[in-house]
Amino acid sequence: MNTPQSRPGDAPFTERTPRVAAARQLTRRAGRERAGRFLVEGAQAVREALVWARAGRGRVHELFVAPAGLPEDLRSLAEEAGVRVSPVTERAAAGLSETVTPQGVVAVCDLLDVPLDTALAGRPTLVAVLVGVSDPGNAGTVVRVADAAGADAVVLAGNTVDPHNGKCVRASTGSLFHLPVARCADVSAVFAACRAAGLELVAADGYADADLASATPGGPTAWVFGSEAHGLPDELLARVDLALRVPIYGAAESLNLATAAAVCLYATAWRQRAGIATAPFHD
Amino acid sequence: MNTPQSRPGDAPFTERTPRVAAARQLTRRAGRERAGRFLVEGAQAVREALVWARAGRGRVHELFVAPAGLPEDLRSLAEEAGVRVSPVTERAAAGLSETVTPQGVVAVCDLLDVPLDTALAGRPTLVAVLVGVSDPGNAGTVVRVADAAGADAVVLAGNTVDPHNGKCVRASTGSLFHLPVARCADVSAVFAACRAAGLELVAADGYADADLASATPGGPTAWVFGSEAHGLPDELLARVDLALRVPIYGAAESLNLATAAAVCLYATAWRQRAGIATAPFHD
Repeated sequence: MNTPQSRPGDAPFTERTPRVAAARQLTRRAGRERAGRFLVEGAQAVREALVWARAGRGRVHELFVAPAGLPEDLRSLAEEAGVRVSPVTERAAAGLSETVTPQGVVAVCDLLDVPLDTALAGRPTLVAVLVGVSDPGNAGTVVRVADAAGADAVVLAGNTVDPHNGKCVRASTGSLFHLPVARCADVSAVFAACRAAGLELVAADGYADADLASATPGGPTAWVFGSEAHGLPDELLARVDLALRVPIYGAAESLNLATAAAVCLYATAWRQRAGIATAPFHD
Repeated sequence: MNTPQSRPGDAPFTERTPRVAAARQLTRRAGRERAGRFLVEGAQAVREALVWARAGRGRVHELFVAPAGLPEDLRSLAEEAGVRVSPVTERAAAGLSETVTPQGVVAVCDLLDVPLDTALAGRPTLVAVLVGVSDPGNAGTVVRVADAAGADAVVLAGNTVDPHNGKCVRASTGSLFHLPVARCADVSAVFAACRAAGLELVAADGYADADLASATPGGPTAWVFGSEAHGLPDELLARVDLALRVPIYGAAESLNLATAAAVCLYATAWRQRAGIATAPFHD
């Protein structure tokens, strides 16, 4: 495929080059919403983005590469996909980066979230719903955990962080490109859509009477996780099918969001795979 | 108990007050090792430190409190324990803080790690061993997870972060004060001590043939976790009793350290509690 690659000898773009300056707008949420694009940083994540684009699930518009250059496999993938690759100065690369140590390669991609109905299509059996999660690193880590546990989708409900935030992208280590991610501010609509998809709504709640070990959900399950600071509001807890706490066997007050999600999602994944009708654990 | 509390009207200490300047040295590892003390920041963690001191497990030397003041329960706890409370300026409090938003209360405590033999005394059934973990936030989160899962101890082996690092203390959310934490650079000595304590050494390794779901350890177990970036070196993997991977059911390459530790430690805790001789999970 013939695509415009930069020629050796071209001067690298600076932070004032219009395309770089435009890309820099994508480090802010308003800029991302306006352009419908976001930035993906680092060789591993850019690789996932190119594979995602090759599968026809979205578009990678271009790559900016610092003087250290592009790993050979990424160059091939970009060429295959017809993605423009432009060298930029160290300073320009740093301006596109949200890490202390810029990774040297940044991709400009279409926003990757899909409509709620698309995310929940096709008889899902395991879904993670995040309500009001504000820390992008936590949200990205939960996407990674959901992917690892074989979840069919992640839904960001209510006033939740933008999954295209650089810290969220980085924490997901590519998993944002692996499974459908939907955003929906209307939590009631999310609950209704999960039920319509045949999912039981199970909330993780540190104050629940029942615990995960004695009542592990094993059917099609949407795990609902609240914010790090406040958990799920009572008003929502009253509307789920079941609330469970992760049992605390020591003196810790709680688990953090990502580790609680890991325990809940894996417990259900195992229960579903075991096909056991009764709880596998007893206190 | 009569203890020297500051009187209303005393000028708050500044960053140049000798005791504050000395405490500031404790934000660095060398300063902590020299003084045998470390800093604990924030109302929740300080509360745990005071309870730990009340139980006779270590000493809290003093509290520095920003103008916003001390929660009433902390003031009572500090008085009960005979701990000196000194008001400091906002600026002095910020100098003792490792957070962007200083928490306004900082305790000076004795280092809390114990000798390896002490940590492993009394027939432990679940222990977490961290080898070469360098990120303090990750180490602290694993301590919190180990506490939640009911572990008897955490051992920081090899070239691992100082558990008294401010980020580690914060990530542990008080759990550092709940269970014995030992440090030992000699990994062979740690493995030998675990075996002598009757623990099976089980490594979490993303490349292991066997997976956690089909071979969940249910006896007395020391889970061994390697660094975020490189896992455990082959040389150590060859010396554990068993290596298991957390199964990845989706497309994620791996889990991060804290979420992997959560899944491993809870799987074993449940298996131990279930008292089932055969694996509760099957693929």
